[in-house]
Amino acid sequence: MVVTRKISLQTKGDGDIIDITSQVEEQLAQAKVNSGTVTLFIPGSTAGITTIEYESGLLADFPTMWERLIPKSIPYHHDRAWGEGNGYAHIRASLLGASLVIPFNNQKLALGTWQQIVLVDFDNRPRSRQVILQIMGK
Amino acid sequence: MVVTRKISLQTKGDGDIIDITSQVEEQLAQAKVNSGTVTLFIPGSTAGITTIEYESGLLADFPTMWERLIPKSIPYHHDRAWGEGNGYAHIRASLLGASLVIPFNNQKLALGTWQQIVLVDFDNRPRSRQVILQIMGK
Amino acid sequence: MVVTRKISLQTKGDGDIIDITSQVEEQLAQAKVNSGTVTLFIPGSTAGITTIEYESGLLADFPTMWERLIPKSIPYHHDRAWGEGNGYAHIRASLLGASLVIPFNNQKLALGTWQQIVLVDFDNRPRSRQVILQIMGK
Repeated sequence: MVVTRKISLQTKGDGDIIDITSQVEEQLAQAKVNSGTVTLFIPGSTAGITTIEYESGLLADFPTMWERLIPKSIPYHHDRAWGEGNGYAHIRASLLGASLVIPFNNQKLALGTWQQIVLVDFDNRPRSRQVILQIMGK
Repeated sequence: MVVTRKISLQTKGDGDIIDITSQVEEQLAQAKVNSGTVTLFIPGSTAGITTIEYESGLLADFPTMWERLIPKSIPYHHDRAWGEGNGYAHIRASLLGASLVIPFNNQKLALGTWQQIVLVDFDNRPRSRQVILQIMGK
Repeated sequence: MVVTRKISLQTKGDGDIIDITSQVEEQLAQAKVNSGTVTLFIPGSTAGITTIEYESGLLADFPTMWERLIPKSIPYHHDRAWGEGNGYAHIRASLLGASLVIPFNNQKLALGTWQQIVLVDFDNRPRSRQVILQIMGK
């Protein structure tokens, strides 16, 4: 069985980290697939998906890491060419990755207790985003 | 077909890199699925999964990279809030990623000759870990 | 249904970024699977797969990021042991990741308009590469 769902959300951009775990669980509950995988994919080249313990300390530490590794303030060829000022957002997204695949059994995701699924929007402005869920299994 | 398997292991923490390739191959051999994908997923927010050529030089170089990019010794908000001292481990794990998907045919993984599957445990203490294997295909 | 395809290509190495989107789309069109996922996997431990907006600015910015984070010029234990001089390539590949999973419906990939699938070959010499496509669904 293959069931496709979409989660639509508004982000603030600028590294906004949004916990989508409960929305993924809701979609899974409605899908009537017992065991398999959920593939999460974010169309677009300035956002990514990962897991994190969603608590205020790490929500500050994660952006600090990005700013240290791929700073906003250094020059990017992308910005010279396109003038959008979001070159750093593209590079961060390419490093983090656009997809995440999570197994489930009895309609329950194999997440750890303190592990949440997050969309990270690196873009330099608020965005409307859609996360694609491909639920496959039996 | 969907077959779920678990690999249980004890890690030393502190960036411990454990080659789980032969255990994944064993589970695949028992699963009686001919072609498809194995989704590997690590529940928990301080460990990740990737591939590497598992030899002593790279087993030293990979931790050196992590220490350069996401050092243990800088302050993390997570540690101020929770006092566990493993803020760096969370951030490293979120960057590396909790899942890896590998195709197989005739029960043989599509790995390169010098490419091994590894669990990386970033936590600051030994841990009991379970890697979830979701084997899907026909 | 499980359909396995391979994309063979010659790279220049040295961080060569190759857009394989149209080749993936072609293989998908021939596979006669309507909805599901394509798992892309690169056998080998010195290359990775991600998505990026494939334009000349970012094609310069992405390698600059790699050189800042995981420089060629610092010493690697791998190079002392094996003398191949590509220790940096292994470490970059392990961080980027060897797999990417993309949902599709009606044989159309869920990519954003400006989002391309790329193979990144970090090795220090030209290589022959094969990207494995595992197309699964119904």
